[in-house]
Amino acid sequence: MRIDGLQYANWSEKVFRQLREGGVDAVHVTIAYHETFRETVLNFEKWNHWFEQYPDLILKGRWASDIEVARDTGRTAVFFGFQNPSPIEDDIGLVEILFDLGARFMQLTYNNQSLLATGCYETNDSGITRMGRQVIKEMNRVGLVVDMSHSADRSTIEAAELSERPIAITHANPYEWAPALRNKRDDVIRAVTENGGMFGFSVYPHHLKDKSDCTLESFCEMIARTAEKYGVRHLGIGTDLCQDHPDSVVEWMRVGRWTREMDFGEGSASNPGFPAMPSWFRDNRDFEKIEAGLLAVGMNSDEVAGIMGENWRRFFAESFGPKEK
Amino acid sequence: MRIDGLQYANWSEKVFRQLREGGVDAVHVTIAYHETFRETVLNFEKWNHWFEQYPDLILKGRWASDIEVARDTGRTAVFFGFQNPSPIEDDIGLVEILFDLGARFMQLTYNNQSLLATGCYETNDSGITRMGRQVIKEMNRVGLVVDMSHSADRSTIEAAELSERPIAITHANPYEWAPALRNKRDDVIRAVTENGGMFGFSVYPHHLKDKSDCTLESFCEMIARTAEKYGVRHLGIGTDLCQDHPDSVVEWMRVGRWTREMDFGEGSASNPGFPAMPSWFRDNRDFEKIEAGLLAVGMNSDEVAGIMGENWRRFFAESFGPKEK
Repeated sequence: MRIDGLQYANWSEKVFRQLREGGVDAVHVTIAYHETFRETVLNFEKWNHWFEQYPDLILKGRWASDIEVARDTGRTAVFFGFQNPSPIEDDIGLVEILFDLGARFMQLTYNNQSLLATGCYETNDSGITRMGRQVIKEMNRVGLVVDMSHSADRSTIEAAELSERPIAITHANPYEWAPALRNKRDDVIRAVTENGGMFGFSVYPHHLKDKSDCTLESFCEMIARTAEKYGVRHLGIGTDLCQDHPDSVVEWMRVGRWTREMDFGEGSASNPGFPAMPSWFRDNRDFEKIEAGLLAVGMNSDEVAGIMGENWRRFFAESFGPKEK
Repeated sequence: MRIDGLQYANWSEKVFRQLREGGVDAVHVTIAYHETFRETVLNFEKWNHWFEQYPDLILKGRWASDIEVARDTGRTAVFFGFQNPSPIEDDIGLVEILFDLGARFMQLTYNNQSLLATGCYETNDSGITRMGRQVIKEMNRVGLVVDMSHSADRSTIEAAELSERPIAITHANPYEWAPALRNKRDDVIRAVTENGGMFGFSVYPHHLKDKSDCTLESFCEMIARTAEKYGVRHLGIGTDLCQDHPDSVVEWMRVGRWTREMDFGEGSASNPGFPAMPSWFRDNRDFEKIEAGLLAVGMNSDEVAGIMGENWRRFFAESFGPKEK
């Protein structure tokens, strides 16, 4: 079983076919960066259209059991998430509405301060806000996963502790291996995993040691070390694959509508666009290389199966929807 | 089994308890008159709150099978509908979105011309519009029922013929019995029922012969005659019960935001508010009186069971959701 914990491709039949070629049974896809509620609904509409257009390749993922349905029918189950709480605006009732529409993950922040928590690019991290505490409670109630991938350290640790259900960092790497602003320090990863949460490893070059030149071996060694430290069952893949987008999209991701000045995020003025992918992960067709790489660094087949999908599957099963009484 | 094909109460614990006292297993409730998409979502949110608050009295109805769940657990299944297509605005993609949120009925018009068809208060009835044809097709695809209760005759007949799935007039009476603008002429009822559709009898006084003074016997006699004419299996109850609302609400229903002048709809300047209910149907506790009344005018127990709920149940089962292949 192969599950990717985060992608944001420029979706097309080509990409859906590559998901199949790569044996991806399920994928969590971003459908909102800075969108309002209504704009997010338009993105749900766009996906409804794709599900209708490509019923032989993809299906809408609502429950963990949809992963098996997908696998049994040679398709990919697509689960929805937001990289920012902008879709709920200032209305906590939208948490359940968006869950009903199929949302399964929501980041409490993107890079900036949100109504709920602090993003990893802010200078001051004031932790979870008043509304943030209420929204975490509501997300716990309906079964929408708290994702802290882009949040600042204190906010993330507080979210892991406040949340009554395990949370996720769907796409990042350990800071100790690659000291990027978006990568996570030991105490952050520990807070998330000790509370039963998941950590997904990213192959987005800005999160890799040596960026686009990172070797598969270095990436897999890092995973093996992280497994020793925090327990393999809390780990998965969350590639952050942003395939086929023009650079205007990375600008939208970073700048949204919050500034009139340019913000280069993890890039720079001299390197403003999407970075080149590492040679061993061009796109969805290359999951087998990661799988082989993990075996090559000495992880056993159970551990590798866990990281490639089984751990996410179990997490989906425990996390989506109201907690069974 | 008792199912009411339309209500618009000022919902409260009191009314929910009366639904139980009246043995109502399912009810189709109006959650939009003139609301935009976002405003309709706020109404879904309000209901989510009630479902959370009164789990022992009500549950959200999505499928016909929820009626059995409700009956087996002593609750009422609440199915949602709109009296106007305003919630989809000018965006056909919202049909599926609103279905996903739980909408199961949508009127193509309220009293006025809409983007889709002509309402029964317009002078000229131009039939189903270009967008109307597309929306009917989309409603058929996702399994959202076309309701023509407030539409003009030609529009209704065209909808019955264009729709590939049976449609409904959830709340009205035959014009021949009570010649109100909202009641339906023979050819309209025939078009709906001949195409497999449903007709729900209203006890809203403006739709009754002699209005608030209508007798139970006259109402039940009318039902028996209608059954002889169009077939009992196409008939149900759709009380149009508007309980506990202040008169400002009937003003909202009639006037919305479409005029700055007063429009009295089925009322008049001298009688602008909600009319008094007939003595034999105060509220949900009185369904047994209708049931007894139907038996008293000579209908047999199977026929009565059909009208009181079984016919709606079968229609719900055939109508909600994509057609099975």
